[in-house]
Amino acid sequence: MVGVSAKSGGGPEAAKRRAGERAAADVEDGMVVGLGTGSTTAHAIRALGERHTDGLEIQGVATSFQSRQLALEVGLPLTDLDAVDGIDLAIDGADQVVDAPSEGTHGTLLKGGGGAHTREKVVAAAADRFVVVADPTKLVAAIDAPVPLEVVPAAHPLVSSRVRALGGEPTLRAASEKDGPVVTDNGNLLVDCAFAEPLEDPTALGRRLSDTPGVLEHGLFPDLADTTYVGTEAGLEVRSY
Amino acid sequence: MVGVSAKSGGGPEAAKRRAGERAAADVEDGMVVGLGTGSTTAHAIRALGERHTDGLEIQGVATSFQSRQLALEVGLPLTDLDAVDGIDLAIDGADQVVDAPSEGTHGTLLKGGGGAHTREKVVAAAADRFVVVADPTKLVAAIDAPVPLEVVPAAHPLVSSRVRALGGEPTLRAASEKDGPVVTDNGNLLVDCAFAEPLEDPTALGRRLSDTPGVLEHGLFPDLADTTYVGTEAGLEVRSY
Repeated sequence: MVGVSAKSGGGPEAAKRRAGERAAADVEDGMVVGLGTGSTTAHAIRALGERHTDGLEIQGVATSFQSRQLALEVGLPLTDLDAVDGIDLAIDGADQVVDAPSEGTHGTLLKGGGGAHTREKVVAAAADRFVVVADPTKLVAAIDAPVPLEVVPAAHPLVSSRVRALGGEPTLRAASEKDGPVVTDNGNLLVDCAFAEPLEDPTALGRRLSDTPGVLEHGLFPDLADTTYVGTEAGLEVRSY
Repeated sequence: MVGVSAKSGGGPEAAKRRAGERAAADVEDGMVVGLGTGSTTAHAIRALGERHTDGLEIQGVATSFQSRQLALEVGLPLTDLDAVDGIDLAIDGADQVVDAPSEGTHGTLLKGGGGAHTREKVVAAAADRFVVVADPTKLVAAIDAPVPLEVVPAAHPLVSSRVRALGGEPTLRAASEKDGPVVTDNGNLLVDCAFAEPLEDPTALGRRLSDTPGVLEHGLFPDLADTTYVGTEAGLEVRSY
């Protein structure tokens, strides 16, 4: 299903804001809401903060340090994933969204550019409904960017050699604001895995990556998204899966 | 292949020692050796300490706080998994070892009673050869004890509900020497998953558990062991896969 709304214009940031605000509009009184990470989702969190100021009673579950900080800033009440029965609606962005009619991969996401994909995946998987917010630059026919893995520190050489055996080129993600590697909010490392060809079967690759000892979570999200809101120059497009 | 050695007697602890010492005898000069966790492997580490005192040049890679402490006690030189090209030989125990002629599961291990199975699996997977040490009480026709999962803290309710969907009964492992749950050496939680029937296909179950968001590693080790040394009252039995 594809729909296009009326609002338009305002450049790339306005397009992101349209997507984020549309997702926030899906939140209803009493809901527990998963709060994703990234610039598009930040618009949703800000919109939810305004709706809460206007009386909407909700509780947020943050997926990262960043989304928690923003939620605190805008005054959203927060809870923890293990303090609630489940999540009614999770909102999150993605680095890539497969937007092709081929069976099986439509709506598949690539995440992990921000290094928060483990908690993001847990929250998305715990949600009754998972809404993705994106702009047109994120839409691809097939995942063709490196797949991030969160890896326990001692395992990164083993994981790298397994990734090579799967045809990928692994790179330990280096930090630029500290010496050495990026360390995730969970205290682990990130290995970005480049594959020469766009991914034909991300589900199968994801399973092989999950099965690699020392891999906490990979950045492929197949079969999790229910709806994608794509903010565009022309307005808003809606994909439902 | 099954072999029986000559030494015999001495009760259960002597049986464990026979297995541990036999594994230590496989270590050659210049090797990097994975040092597992548990009472049977402890005999191997002590035997390696004696061989090192007698001039054997080796480096150990510990799989846990416990195995590191014992290695330090007996004077074994230690290195880190990411400081070496790989591991020549890993030695470790198991909670259960499948010892049945049926295809596909022979030699499959259940580990994680000690909560160190993530690092143990990484070390075993990085090893050219993985030797398991056991006593007859560990041998089973099929895995029939709860499967431990190492789980990121926030994910334990989601993981528990996924385990129930797979037909298992999850229990968050409680600590007895502190309030609250057991926390692993990696700062995570343990969920023990009891299944009503012995596991017919541990490989398939393991893949589904690995694929569950928030699961770092499960305690099933299919297709990793190369040899099992079983210390018995009568001597020592050798299984090679």
